[in-house]
Amino acid sequence: MKIVPRSKVIYSFSSQHKPVEHIKSGELVLLETEDALGGQIKNEESSLDVLDWSKVDGATGPIFIEGAARGDTLVVEILDIKIEEKGLIVTVPKHGILGEKRFKPSTKMISTNDGYVHFDEGVRVRANPMIGTIGVAPESGEIASGSLGRHGGNMDVKMLTSGTKLHLPVFVEGALFAAGDMHAVQADGELCVSSVEVAGEALLRFSVIKNRKPEWPILETHGCFAILACGNTLDEAATFAAETAVKAFMREYDWSFERAYMFGSLAVDLEINQVVDPKKGIRAAISKEFISLENMLT
Amino acid sequence: MKIVPRSKVIYSFSSQHKPVEHIKSGELVLLETEDALGGQIKNEESSLDVLDWSKVDGATGPIFIEGAARGDTLVVEILDIKIEEKGLIVTVPKHGILGEKRFKPSTKMISTNDGYVHFDEGVRVRANPMIGTIGVAPESGEIASGSLGRHGGNMDVKMLTSGTKLHLPVFVEGALFAAGDMHAVQADGELCVSSVEVAGEALLRFSVIKNRKPEWPILETHGCFAILACGNTLDEAATFAAETAVKAFMREYDWSFERAYMFGSLAVDLEINQVVDPKKGIRAAISKEFISLENMLT
Repeated sequence: MKIVPRSKVIYSFSSQHKPVEHIKSGELVLLETEDALGGQIKNEESSLDVLDWSKVDGATGPIFIEGAARGDTLVVEILDIKIEEKGLIVTVPKHGILGEKRFKPSTKMISTNDGYVHFDEGVRVRANPMIGTIGVAPESGEIASGSLGRHGGNMDVKMLTSGTKLHLPVFVEGALFAAGDMHAVQADGELCVSSVEVAGEALLRFSVIKNRKPEWPILETHGCFAILACGNTLDEAATFAAETAVKAFMREYDWSFERAYMFGSLAVDLEINQVVDPKKGIRAAISKEFISLENMLT
Repeated sequence: MKIVPRSKVIYSFSSQHKPVEHIKSGELVLLETEDALGGQIKNEESSLDVLDWSKVDGATGPIFIEGAARGDTLVVEILDIKIEEKGLIVTVPKHGILGEKRFKPSTKMISTNDGYVHFDEGVRVRANPMIGTIGVAPESGEIASGSLGRHGGNMDVKMLTSGTKLHLPVFVEGALFAAGDMHAVQADGELCVSSVEVAGEALLRFSVIKNRKPEWPILETHGCFAILACGNTLDEAATFAAETAVKAFMREYDWSFERAYMFGSLAVDLEINQVVDPKKGIRAAISKEFISLENMLT
């Protein structure tokens, strides 16, 4: 097993970054990650004013996956996630879904143990450790690790947890994978712009599907596939996700557009990942009863 | 038990409609409903061109609930739903989330039996009969029964099924309740603008909470409450739903805005009802562990 330490951090996804590790298909990798605020906030008195914003939203990597080339699919298995007990959540004026309201910058330290996130006196939420940022280098240019796109990135999907697989399109040789921004728990939406931000480590295994790739990242659980699309608005993201799902049904069943579109009303659940990042994220979840991975790749 | 036949149909929610029945708190009502297309389509050869569009999206009612007055909450218990075996789904050019694409008007007859919706050869989906349109008269004016708002209406929420309660704000004396537009099954989104449209009957029981009302309709299941908001876009609807949830946490825990906003990132799931009606619908789902009905009413 190879270990990639959290000191190996990037703040963008780009083909220009030099790989910090080379990994073979099937090899286990333990990826250590810093919290989304770069570990800069140690207590509730730390002011957000003194935060070095160039050191937030980092991702550990990039990792070069041997055998992955443009046009392939990188399959990432999340085998296990361990998080630190101590996390934090912040409100940042002008941010989050209610950013138009007047409110103060604030920080709350939150501990997670015994399977629960202890938010406040007598108020605890079951922990669900997840990876907020996970992706590969885009075809060209540089995409901030706090943003998201067809390459993945800061998707903030609560289902990206232990036991889930993620299928990412590969744009450059070696894929140049990186991940970070774990949350001890996050609900769909991530209303206030942050969730319970924690450092942690993820045990991952990679493999490659040659010469076929998804249009958007695809998450796979035991029971379903979910297309992870994003857009400037939720409505735009929902349209992208819906269109991708309908095209997959046309391939799966050899149906007309009209028939596949109808089936979308019965079998595609449009769900929300987050409403607070540079692009809004929607997932189109489809039971494995109704679609195969093969027909979600082109 | 009183029976309200499906011939008693309205095409708008309005204080001006004459009640077709008067009901006491606790009394059982069997409400018969027509399918969303007014029963006009009998086979796949029926052309949508000949559809009388003034006879679609009807709701059975209105029912005057004794004791319900402006400022109260009308509690509707959905005790049972029975649907006809024969339903249909349609695509309508320019409609649905992919309305910008070129496609044909089409109709598919679909039967539901043994607990399954039989969509196509070898493709069946588990039935989940639900009520698409359910609401009360608004404060003033007339709102088409195909639209939705704070009064309820064509919300198309897949959780409005047997065993669910709905808490509606009352705007006029007697509330003037009506419901219709059942679906044999519908996924979150209702992509193509219709789902499996069926006639059916709902067994309902009503009660009234005096002098307190929700800002938006609130759905209640065994485990959660969900605020049902709508807006011109998904983003607008999500903002309304989020704000209502955060205000409820402030009342429940006596928290500052900042603390309640943070908790929203952990405990409020923003989910999609539909993306295809005149207004888009979002539900903010919160476990009963974290909120009481009392603090969702004002």
